[in-house]
Amino acid sequence: MAGRKQAKREVEALQTELQRLQLAYARQGRSAVVVLEGWDAAGKGGLIRRIGWVLDPRTLSVWQIGAPDAVERRQHWLQRFWARIPPAGEIAIFDRSWYGRVLVERVEGFASAQTWHRAYDEINGFEQTLVDDGIRVVKLFLDIDSATQLERFVARYENPAKRWKLTAEDIRNRGRWGAYESAYADMFARCSTRVAPWHRIDANDKRRARVEALRVIVDTLGAGVDTALPAPDTAVETFMDALGPGGR
Amino acid sequence: MAGRKQAKREVEALQTELQRLQLAYARQGRSAVVVLEGWDAAGKGGLIRRIGWVLDPRTLSVWQIGAPDAVERRQHWLQRFWARIPPAGEIAIFDRSWYGRVLVERVEGFASAQTWHRAYDEINGFEQTLVDDGIRVVKLFLDIDSATQLERFVARYENPAKRWKLTAEDIRNRGRWGAYESAYADMFARCSTRVAPWHRIDANDKRRARVEALRVIVDTLGAGVDTALPAPDTAVETFMDALGPGGR
Amino acid sequence: MAGRKQAKREVEALQTELQRLQLAYARQGRSAVVVLEGWDAAGKGGLIRRIGWVLDPRTLSVWQIGAPDAVERRQHWLQRFWARIPPAGEIAIFDRSWYGRVLVERVEGFASAQTWHRAYDEINGFEQTLVDDGIRVVKLFLDIDSATQLERFVARYENPAKRWKLTAEDIRNRGRWGAYESAYADMFARCSTRVAPWHRIDANDKRRARVEALRVIVDTLGAGVDTALPAPDTAVETFMDALGPGGR
Amino acid sequence: MAGRKQAKREVEALQTELQRLQLAYARQGRSAVVVLEGWDAAGKGGLIRRIGWVLDPRTLSVWQIGAPDAVERRQHWLQRFWARIPPAGEIAIFDRSWYGRVLVERVEGFASAQTWHRAYDEINGFEQTLVDDGIRVVKLFLDIDSATQLERFVARYENPAKRWKLTAEDIRNRGRWGAYESAYADMFARCSTRVAPWHRIDANDKRRARVEALRVIVDTLGAGVDTALPAPDTAVETFMDALGPGGR
Repeated sequence: MAGRKQAKREVEALQTELQRLQLAYARQGRSAVVVLEGWDAAGKGGLIRRIGWVLDPRTLSVWQIGAPDAVERRQHWLQRFWARIPPAGEIAIFDRSWYGRVLVERVEGFASAQTWHRAYDEINGFEQTLVDDGIRVVKLFLDIDSATQLERFVARYENPAKRWKLTAEDIRNRGRWGAYESAYADMFARCSTRVAPWHRIDANDKRRARVEALRVIVDTLGAGVDTALPAPDTAVETFMDALGPGGR
Repeated sequence: MAGRKQAKREVEALQTELQRLQLAYARQGRSAVVVLEGWDAAGKGGLIRRIGWVLDPRTLSVWQIGAPDAVERRQHWLQRFWARIPPAGEIAIFDRSWYGRVLVERVEGFASAQTWHRAYDEINGFEQTLVDDGIRVVKLFLDIDSATQLERFVARYENPAKRWKLTAEDIRNRGRWGAYESAYADMFARCSTRVAPWHRIDANDKRRARVEALRVIVDTLGAGVDTALPAPDTAVETFMDALGPGGR
Repeated sequence: MAGRKQAKREVEALQTELQRLQLAYARQGRSAVVVLEGWDAAGKGGLIRRIGWVLDPRTLSVWQIGAPDAVERRQHWLQRFWARIPPAGEIAIFDRSWYGRVLVERVEGFASAQTWHRAYDEINGFEQTLVDDGIRVVKLFLDIDSATQLERFVARYENPAKRWKLTAEDIRNRGRWGAYESAYADMFARCSTRVAPWHRIDANDKRRARVEALRVIVDTLGAGVDTALPAPDTAVETFMDALGPGGR
Repeated sequence: MAGRKQAKREVEALQTELQRLQLAYARQGRSAVVVLEGWDAAGKGGLIRRIGWVLDPRTLSVWQIGAPDAVERRQHWLQRFWARIPPAGEIAIFDRSWYGRVLVERVEGFASAQTWHRAYDEINGFEQTLVDDGIRVVKLFLDIDSATQLERFVARYENPAKRWKLTAEDIRNRGRWGAYESAYADMFARCSTRVAPWHRIDANDKRRARVEALRVIVDTLGAGVDTALPAPDTAVETFMDALGPGGR
């Protein structure tokens, strides 16, 4: 339990840092993209909640990326991602992302071999264009092994309130573990670029994984950024001064 | 402290209900709009976090409504709200809303008297149209008295990490307390309709206010809605059966 | 042939007026909505081309309204129309419109009786809201009799280049002539309001119909609007003066 | 005058081809982007009208690209162009385009040297991505010499109805003729790629320019595309057969 308390304290310290970074980004017109990929039940949702709970929703977007809808299927495949790139001052989290092209679309055969082969370069070009424009790109992969996933599936199933979360798709994906391993390996080999490297996080221990993931985000978003909070507005100071000591 | 624990338990029970409602809404193609208004520092942010933390972001939107941007200023004033009405299966929370027309725009003189006078009927018509289409509308007003607000401003100011949250606008709004009281009174008198009544929540006690607010939301969204969770998919059952007892 | 030349001259004069109105609207931040409904082959397309050819596309939108797409079907039915209401300074033409609810959706049974019955009031409320905000609404119905439609269908069919324009839907709609007549009658009775009256144009003679339709548009958009062209910019004057007589 | 009639006939023949191509694109789910750049008064507007008049607005978009608005200025510079890339089955015309970055933004100093230098590669990457996805890209530059521009400015000025079209910006741009010549030269050198070459059209003779431009568009969009019109629907055939000879 010492580890638990320790992890909680570390998460809270990193959340505070993240808050200061978000404020700095908003003030300085910076923007960032956080990409989350990983096995089913690896803990993406829990990580996102740790980020989302503490940040100001006005300058944070969280995008859950699934299969393209009927309108998106008629568009260029990158178009729905371009539409979600955050404007100056904002941060966007992608819960799954454009990497679906070389992951689920490859494994399920939704994209032709030629199409997903081409996608590695398209993705690198896309991310390079974002970084060139000053947008920071953080890519995190939450990694668990097969036994951990099974354990979490069973736990989910045995909890009546959470049983519905376990879907036929989870089961099907698990049956394609090897195919996904190959797809992940190629993704790391081809798309871990200098400007936007992949960070693999060992997520078999959820608490440690959250600390590590938050640290990578804070380090990448924070490098070279001044996070000093601004002085209060004169009107606020004047008002508080007039109140006298202790606000009375 | 007994009250604190009690409130926490009640909040958690209501959050669980809300989760089941969100799932039911998503499955049944229902949708709902939650409108939050209230004095600065009344606790809207804390309430939204209690809702947002437990709901699935894929079918929840939280809209922070401020002054219209340059593009929105050239549009019909209701257009930016129409654009945010949730599709079937989704819930949207408005942190401030179209009521800005008869509140801040009235008090600050951004809207002419003729314009905001007309807005009461426009708002009632707008909400009626939503309700007619099956969209549930819940409107909550978090009410605090002037002394409570002052206390919270001072506490915010004295906390170095939160001092920046107190803005010149907060101070200016406080100076117009009377004008806002009139505006709120007219809003209740004119826009508390049968299909979309206003709920005033006494928010001087934050914890009690959260319980009350969540209860109103759960009651309104839940009336006549079947929240039974669906049975797991056959593929999930087959997989779990094959694992044998205890998932082994 | 005298009629033909005369109509052409009148169309051109009205087009010039319309150009001046568009410029005035853009300068003065006014906006307008032109709604076109009518029987298949009544000449909506030809009329729209006469308007579109002479106006500046930067402040003109032409919306072809068909069945809602998969995304729109999950929205409030008015939402896709609200999204297309022109901002200040712009004009929008709707080639078919929100009246589809009480026309094709009623006739084809896509909307329940309760739904389309309610729509008359919803439409009147919608248009009233637009007009209250200063947006002018012009509604034109191009009316032809059954014999004229048949003649035009046959002509279309006999022209190899235009044969494809004649669709199974045109044939099916023609088979429901009586049902559409009732729907049109109710539309005129219920939605020809003081602020947004319906204008029925006899379109059995295409040329006369274009003149009449353009005149209604010019009259409605032009009432009380100053269409004087602005003086050229000083920089332009200076440049031209420096060129000397005849621009040399 | 023989040239005038000849050009008119050629334009009409090309317009008919373009109509068949648009129908084929819509049926076959193809899409295309037509980019128009050129000197002020080179005739872009007239060319666009020749295209727009004959095409079906339901699957054609015409985008007038000016300076980015307040919302767009906070986005990645390519984002507003990505948002306008046509979906499958549609054609988009850009009246000015993403090349503004290396033209007006370079000449006027709105973009830093580093920014516009980088843009050549970004543009080539962008266009490559479109072409890889099967979107055809046609880029036309309407070229006139300085004397022709002056003549057209004077003619515009001397026509009271068109005088307003001549703006201070036109005069200022003319004063930077040399800077624009350099920018155009670099654009051709850097962005005339194999997949998306630039076509320079001599537009000193407007009529010849329209024929040439339309021919380039028709040739590029038409290469390898089957433009056979579909047979009429069975319901149409049955209806026409029942009418008897001559539609009676």
